[in-house]
Amino acid sequence: MDRVYTIQIRTGRRMEMVDITAQVREIVRKSGVRSGICVLYVPHTTAAVTVNENADPSVRSDITRTLAKLVPAGAGYEHLEGNADSHIKATMVGPSETLIISDGDIILGTWQGIFFCEFDGPRNRRLFVKIMEG
Amino acid sequence: MDRVYTIQIRTGRRMEMVDITAQVREIVRKSGVRSGICVLYVPHTTAAVTVNENADPSVRSDITRTLAKLVPAGAGYEHLEGNADSHIKATMVGPSETLIISDGDIILGTWQGIFFCEFDGPRNRRLFVKIMEG
Amino acid sequence: MDRVYTIQIRTGRRMEMVDITAQVREIVRKSGVRSGICVLYVPHTTAAVTVNENADPSVRSDITRTLAKLVPAGAGYEHLEGNADSHIKATMVGPSETLIISDGDIILGTWQGIFFCEFDGPRNRRLFVKIMEG
Repeated sequence: MDRVYTIQIRTGRRMEMVDITAQVREIVRKSGVRSGICVLYVPHTTAAVTVNENADPSVRSDITRTLAKLVPAGAGYEHLEGNADSHIKATMVGPSETLIISDGDIILGTWQGIFFCEFDGPRNRRLFVKIMEG
Repeated sequence: MDRVYTIQIRTGRRMEMVDITAQVREIVRKSGVRSGICVLYVPHTTAAVTVNENADPSVRSDITRTLAKLVPAGAGYEHLEGNADSHIKATMVGPSETLIISDGDIILGTWQGIFFCEFDGPRNRRLFVKIMEG
Repeated sequence: MDRVYTIQIRTGRRMEMVDITAQVREIVRKSGVRSGICVLYVPHTTAAVTVNENADPSVRSDITRTLAKLVPAGAGYEHLEGNADSHIKATMVGPSETLIISDGDIILGTWQGIFFCEFDGPRNRRLFVKIMEG
């Protein structure tokens, strides 16, 4: 039992932030771990994971639209698969986040949610969750 | 005892990088843990944490001014609270960092300091520190 | 034995992404740890670490060129050492990543490699690898 869990995600657009907070919480609860950390890891090179506001969905669209403006698709990149911008966004946001587990749950601020960031969808994606007790 | 500690921060400007290196070091020393990791986590959606140079303060102002130029405040965002740019900066810098504890102290490079990044201040803020032994 | 290892890197250009996947894998294998996490940490303030595509090298050059365009060198910064842009890029990409160890190896997606990001080379650099069992 090495406490690595998989969240399956079906994205619906080229750029999208999918709320996975409930799935992560459920995994932590089921693990029975009361104290430790929870590592989120995205095994894709054109996607990422972040934490941000989950109350107003316009925050998510502001994030994706601003990233699209900073790193436009098709702006004369060398990589010929048409998703160079997606790779760059993936590195700017990052493939991993580490959360704290306390009292059997992850610590999140009042307005925080966990988001899988799709930068080259729609696709079937995975995110790994590793629980460490301690 | 789950080794989760809280650092309280009072920020004084809208964008600011506050040096919290001494507080993090003190927490690690007091924990008595000689070997392990130290996870820093920001429970806010318009703030972040990073590691960068602590010698010349102009590095911090260059970072905040460049982020302000890349993601300007009030640039036609959907989110109506006037801090859409702060949310975007928070995701670009990120809510967590993981440091290594060796010989009872965190490993930092000669010029490295740990900075709480305020993107929508002034406010009262918190940062959680989790120590994992191993 | 606190399982902190060092990777030495000699970079050859001002901006460069150096593939360190094989070195990280070798460290994890030699540690004998079957299950846990692997924390990568860069003790420099003008370098970073990321995970991205390792198949087509043009992805790396697209990333460095886009970062150079977003944060140009010599664009009127306060910091007078001529590498303010390098510090900013370091914070945008970040000094740490956390990988999952399962079945004695790090979990990586099919196209993923681990890259040390040089933003102010050429220099002699180090990256620390910490293995946590659990």
